[in-house]
Amino acid sequence: MKAKAVELKAAGKKIGLAPTMGYLHAGHISLIAQLQGKCDVKIASIFVNPMQFTPSEDFNRYPRNEAGDLAALESAGIDIAFMPEIATVYPPEFQTSIEIEHLTQPLCGRFRPGHFRGVTTIVLKQFNITKCDVAVFGLKDFQQEMITSRMVTDLDLPVELVFGATIREKDGLAMSSRNSYLTEIERKTARALPKALETARRLAAGGEKRAGRIADEVRKSLETQPSMVIQYIEIVDPLTLTPVERITKRSQLAVAVFVGKTRLIDNVAIGPDGDTNAIYDEGEKHD
Amino acid sequence: MKAKAVELKAAGKKIGLAPTMGYLHAGHISLIAQLQGKCDVKIASIFVNPMQFTPSEDFNRYPRNEAGDLAALESAGIDIAFMPEIATVYPPEFQTSIEIEHLTQPLCGRFRPGHFRGVTTIVLKQFNITKCDVAVFGLKDFQQEMITSRMVTDLDLPVELVFGATIREKDGLAMSSRNSYLTEIERKTARALPKALETARRLAAGGEKRAGRIADEVRKSLETQPSMVIQYIEIVDPLTLTPVERITKRSQLAVAVFVGKTRLIDNVAIGPDGDTNAIYDEGEKHD
Repeated sequence: MKAKAVELKAAGKKIGLAPTMGYLHAGHISLIAQLQGKCDVKIASIFVNPMQFTPSEDFNRYPRNEAGDLAALESAGIDIAFMPEIATVYPPEFQTSIEIEHLTQPLCGRFRPGHFRGVTTIVLKQFNITKCDVAVFGLKDFQQEMITSRMVTDLDLPVELVFGATIREKDGLAMSSRNSYLTEIERKTARALPKALETARRLAAGGEKRAGRIADEVRKSLETQPSMVIQYIEIVDPLTLTPVERITKRSQLAVAVFVGKTRLIDNVAIGPDGDTNAIYDEGEKHD
Repeated sequence: MKAKAVELKAAGKKIGLAPTMGYLHAGHISLIAQLQGKCDVKIASIFVNPMQFTPSEDFNRYPRNEAGDLAALESAGIDIAFMPEIATVYPPEFQTSIEIEHLTQPLCGRFRPGHFRGVTTIVLKQFNITKCDVAVFGLKDFQQEMITSRMVTDLDLPVELVFGATIREKDGLAMSSRNSYLTEIERKTARALPKALETARRLAAGGEKRAGRIADEVRKSLETQPSMVIQYIEIVDPLTLTPVERITKRSQLAVAVFVGKTRLIDNVAIGPDGDTNAIYDEGEKHD
């Protein structure tokens, strides 16, 4: 991949990258579509990055589907599928990581120590290996994308970031490879997550300024599902990820829950300018 | 600098970088000379990097000589002097750093917490800003260069590193901008440092395999100077920087001392293949 990237850059090609952990869904494909017109060569990586899983997490059982992914990438118009081996990415002497001091602390950072260090490190490595000029990421992983953006600025990386909106199932559930863990019953339970986000979005759009009041409603809404365990419900400034008390500008509601053993995250912009991100397609029913 | 680098790369130029903190001496100039023939455009940076000084260190009094440095760079054939402002390099929201887990722990790492994190971060930023294809560093800062080399490998940086031998004064003292802190008497005391290294080098060249025995001789030699305070004397594997007990292959002796308030470091390769790095010019007297 390194040699190919050198060759492409020497030929004056603009390179686009969609970094993924595979088990591709419509969210990934929508990201790849965003590369259209922004580059000459489209690369998608598939790499389940052990460094971003904490020891108790699901690295070993993370879903994989190499053949299906390759077919999906081909139909999506990807030119190069980059699928490195773990031993190549992290040889025994490997000992380097990227630390983002503040943005990694709240939200998922509180519950997944070292996760974002793993994310930023693999993202930087893939930027350097592919020599990409533009890279696409999905806003379902909102905190990750804010951290990646900070890294690009702070380290003067010559990469343009493009963030794609969260792609959702018809019932509002954000697409995620981890949704495949859900049993049929859990899958129905999971609907409560986008529904709670939509409740919050409407409250804020209706003029509710008290973040605490909105978070309470989200909690109440999620607690209608006895088998859903809330990890966090936070309303934060979208750039600093610090808690917001009054919603006087666009803010981000971010939620993490467990449904059974499956951890789900979701987020939505709320408040001024936040109401363009409806959770449900127009006309879809959701109760 | 970023715009210029983009322009140079677009024109197919190969870029060389000599990162410095200024107050240039013959060591820096010898590094710049190493860029000759390796690139089309030679950049030298001058940036006293606050991030690599610990709070108790000499950031504020670090010697500066902008006019002299620019003249020296011009005579040395540098095409671009890159002298960024601190506020540009580290804006208020800056929060990213590079961590190298193991190589930063021993030697200077024990006494300068955070120092190497500051070094790797500014080096990576300068690599990205200048888009350099090749960069030169001096082996006087041996641990720093091993760490930089690790970073380049681990993060897949497209930069060739060139390491230049330590350049010394006639009496053997390694050139360093910090030598300017020394009073006339301290300057004479400082001679004991290269002399001790030479003693060690000769012992190892003469067949002494016991690292402890050699370190003891270095200590004894340094302790002839009552005003010299030893911070560390270590004999390590040059790649892993872990202590060596028996010198069965090329090893690195690294020493840090204080002479008055001035901290001096020096190092020499000892053992098999280590004897090509004589501390003194042939024919120079040193007692």
